[in-house]
Amino acid sequence: MRQLDVCLTPDLLHLHQLDNVIVVVADIFRATSCMVTGLAYGVKSITPVATVEECKALQEKGYFAAAERNALMVEGFDLDNSPFSYMSERLIGSHIAMTTTNGTLSIAKAKKAAVKVMVGAFLNLGALANQLRSEQYDVLVLCAGWKGRPNMEDTLFAGALAEALKDEFMLMEDSALMAQRMYNQGKDNLLGYVANSSHVRRLQRLGIQKDISYSLQSDLYDVVPVLRGSQLVALN
Amino acid sequence: MRQLDVCLTPDLLHLHQLDNVIVVVADIFRATSCMVTGLAYGVKSITPVATVEECKALQEKGYFAAAERNALMVEGFDLDNSPFSYMSERLIGSHIAMTTTNGTLSIAKAKKAAVKVMVGAFLNLGALANQLRSEQYDVLVLCAGWKGRPNMEDTLFAGALAEALKDEFMLMEDSALMAQRMYNQGKDNLLGYVANSSHVRRLQRLGIQKDISYSLQSDLYDVVPVLRGSQLVALN
Repeated sequence: MRQLDVCLTPDLLHLHQLDNVIVVVADIFRATSCMVTGLAYGVKSITPVATVEECKALQEKGYFAAAERNALMVEGFDLDNSPFSYMSERLIGSHIAMTTTNGTLSIAKAKKAAVKVMVGAFLNLGALANQLRSEQYDVLVLCAGWKGRPNMEDTLFAGALAEALKDEFMLMEDSALMAQRMYNQGKDNLLGYVANSSHVRRLQRLGIQKDISYSLQSDLYDVVPVLRGSQLVALN
Repeated sequence: MRQLDVCLTPDLLHLHQLDNVIVVVADIFRATSCMVTGLAYGVKSITPVATVEECKALQEKGYFAAAERNALMVEGFDLDNSPFSYMSERLIGSHIAMTTTNGTLSIAKAKKAAVKVMVGAFLNLGALANQLRSEQYDVLVLCAGWKGRPNMEDTLFAGALAEALKDEFMLMEDSALMAQRMYNQGKDNLLGYVANSSHVRRLQRLGIQKDISYSLQSDLYDVVPVLRGSQLVALN
């Protein structure tokens, strides 16, 4: 039976063996929720990059550029880190370059060793679970966390995916079991469950409560973003 | 108001600032449960060391030596890693040198920067909470985990301490909130809650179910082990 494991932050990724493992990166508030939304709304590709400079360089080549640091848009870029910004008609068919505090770093770390890298969010939970069932590989959910620390929303997502896949995958490791139990504890009211988390407090100070509510909705989209070379594209 | 934070594994300790912080190290199965038991039963001091070689060197100086690797006693030593081994009359007034897979490494890491290092277990939960209330410092609970990964039993202990201290300490960070919620989810049946955790499965294969049940009991002892120089002694 295949295994599903959870890595609570990219700072623990060195403890995981990734050969023949599909890594699902989750940065619920808000990078991977943006990615899923953008690809669902017709964005052609999203290139995650580690630095603001790389993002700038792709912008000069004609990409729409999204750069977030500490939850705020970096000046001179085209897009902030709100999923609602990715619903724009101007982005249909476009290529986007994106760098964020935590999410794109996790993707960069994962792609060094994983057999495939996919992007997960509550927004595409069911589609992603179906895709993973149809693959032959073990799964590691990599929570982007916040500056190396575990966070609640990404752990809850990992738990949701573990719960969805528990009949097809073994949950052997404590991180996976803990995430699953936390999700089951909070699933009837995710918004309430994360209300006093550190990131929600941080985002609420920025007045983006609607991004939070939106990103906690399950199964809005059927899209599964997968990394092809340096680009995330919709799997089909 | 003081803060209580939780570090889910020593591999994340670099993310925490430890000046003016008391670090409480927890390795429930079984190092810190042994330490609390030993000091409660009259052991004079326990010197945690990082390597089997250092342990051997202290043994040659007359210490009782306890060396565990991968949950088994290393050959040629005096004590295994069962808390019941620490109830022996021959140990009253003695000095013990101890090295374990996870717990003593965490103590070694913590003592480099923390203002004080204490040892926690369910066995001394109430006494430890009282002591921390009487101090003036922030608290970080350092879960020893398993080879760098978070584990369930140490996270539950961190949550139990967070729950005990929630009126006097702020829980600002998600790791602390997650541990607290997990403890509240599992507290009515801790033994059942950890039953399918990876470490319990590992220990059960070794036939030491009684160590597990014992180590999940709260408030058997009033002792608070604190590091003085290189030795853990009972605070009084």
